[in-house]
Amino acid sequence: MKLGIDMGGMSIKMGLVNEENEIIGRITIPTDLTVPYQMLVERMADAVQQMLENAGMTLEQCEGIGIGSPGTIDAKRGVILYSNNFGWENVPIVEELKKHLDVGIEIANDADAAALGEVYAGAAEGAENAVLLTLGTGVGSGVILDKKIFRGGMPGGCELGHLSIHHDGVRCTCGRKGCLEAYASASALLRIAREKAAEHPESVMNEMCKNDLEQMNGKIPFDAAKAGDEAGMEVIKEYEGYLACGIANVINTFRPEKVILGGGVAAQKENLTAPLKDLVKDMCFGGSHGYIADIVTSALGNDAGIIGAANLVV
Amino acid sequence: MKLGIDMGGMSIKMGLVNEENEIIGRITIPTDLTVPYQMLVERMADAVQQMLENAGMTLEQCEGIGIGSPGTIDAKRGVILYSNNFGWENVPIVEELKKHLDVGIEIANDADAAALGEVYAGAAEGAENAVLLTLGTGVGSGVILDKKIFRGGMPGGCELGHLSIHHDGVRCTCGRKGCLEAYASASALLRIAREKAAEHPESVMNEMCKNDLEQMNGKIPFDAAKAGDEAGMEVIKEYEGYLACGIANVINTFRPEKVILGGGVAAQKENLTAPLKDLVKDMCFGGSHGYIADIVTSALGNDAGIIGAANLVV
Repeated sequence: MKLGIDMGGMSIKMGLVNEENEIIGRITIPTDLTVPYQMLVERMADAVQQMLENAGMTLEQCEGIGIGSPGTIDAKRGVILYSNNFGWENVPIVEELKKHLDVGIEIANDADAAALGEVYAGAAEGAENAVLLTLGTGVGSGVILDKKIFRGGMPGGCELGHLSIHHDGVRCTCGRKGCLEAYASASALLRIAREKAAEHPESVMNEMCKNDLEQMNGKIPFDAAKAGDEAGMEVIKEYEGYLACGIANVINTFRPEKVILGGGVAAQKENLTAPLKDLVKDMCFGGSHGYIADIVTSALGNDAGIIGAANLVV
Repeated sequence: MKLGIDMGGMSIKMGLVNEENEIIGRITIPTDLTVPYQMLVERMADAVQQMLENAGMTLEQCEGIGIGSPGTIDAKRGVILYSNNFGWENVPIVEELKKHLDVGIEIANDADAAALGEVYAGAAEGAENAVLLTLGTGVGSGVILDKKIFRGGMPGGCELGHLSIHHDGVRCTCGRKGCLEAYASASALLRIAREKAAEHPESVMNEMCKNDLEQMNGKIPFDAAKAGDEAGMEVIKEYEGYLACGIANVINTFRPEKVILGGGVAAQKENLTAPLKDLVKDMCFGGSHGYIADIVTSALGNDAGIIGAANLVV
């Protein structure tokens, strides 16, 4: 039995994960950022004890705890170096949690943990090497090689959402120009769709968002395209071109067996992955001599974080 | 004592490398591609024996042999999967060489081997993590993490020269659009310089290549810029912008301690690296919370391949 903690901006989700990677107990607490981190960690520890009690278990029966956290993580030292979501800097969360729960505790970036979850029990089950790209507000990434999280060399993390696919392109929230995040996040999809809908008053996308472009969501351009709306098809084609470029960059770097797409946009499943596979295969170096990864959508959804975090425990 | 073999399109360079990573014996044979690979490998073996004899040594005193080869390498199986330079496909070179030389033999991609050489004895000596980008006809890359070659997951290699920095940009020789190679290789620099010189008849670059743009070389735009030639300065600024974009992509992926630039363009040394450092520092994710690699030029030049190959032997 292992314990996975998935820290999010709104809530902290905890789960008891068995050998079959099933979540057999859960508890969630709010991410209260009005209190010092020490207090939030104490609440996490209390919740863990509560969850164990609910399951009729004790901490001694638990092999260890894994934490997935947003931000830049120093996994070796167990420190959250910087988290924009939490407004935290240099928080020694592992040491702090150990004060309350005396077991082995590991930490990783939340996208890394989710990628590990998908490899252990999700869309890349059975694979040794996989890359997860989450297409949400931003583009998060997690790279798994030999069934372990790839962290690169020095602290700072492997941030594939912040590889530029246009040296002089759209400005990203990180300050750089042309980041994949600025072109292939769900937010970028909305931007492209809003622009296209505004240019094309005849597009059904306008109707679909009740003529209020603020109501645009990530499903509308896909639905419009499916209904044969030309502007909608253009949006999807443009978006998939950007995403394919990012995926091919990932393949030419990591040669994973699978590229897993997560986040809101991934709800489109084959509708999204089928055209991407076509686009990507001609962009990978080495042609038939190089391995071209399969492209799939995440299978675990929000549980990937808990299951992956639990699998940080060795 | 170890033995390094650096296979090139024109010649195969071999060296005896001591514990201090000095090359204490050398021999070179032409890369004769008119004969079957078995025959070329036999010549390589003969040359190795000759080199050992010249040094008054025997194969038994040699810890092993490392080979650096261009192309897509399956290091585990010791096979050159595909080399465009050699016109080879699925050549089991390690097995073939072992028929003649009964020692441990390892193989790696030549840029990987050169990167390893720079980490063991060159521009990144003392570093654990470094990335080499060679700016020549193409852009080769070698990634070293924890003092070992990073090969990614499946065969096909980590080809950082073929990460697109412009999803809809210049067509690369690999077929893809916008590859770093199409923007930051020495060949790309010549293309940019030729175009600019043609647009600006007043530019001193025209004079420097005797009004024959075919005579353009990688030094001319740098010399012109240094002399205050506006068109020359524009060429360098444009080229460095592309290269900085590629380097920042490398840093956001691998977080190396050093990015080493090799190949012809790297002869510019600080002239090249100083402005790049300025450009890159604002492009790296995490700002002051992430590690930003130093940018240096290669120190070993052509010897990096031999020294790195020798250090493949464990």
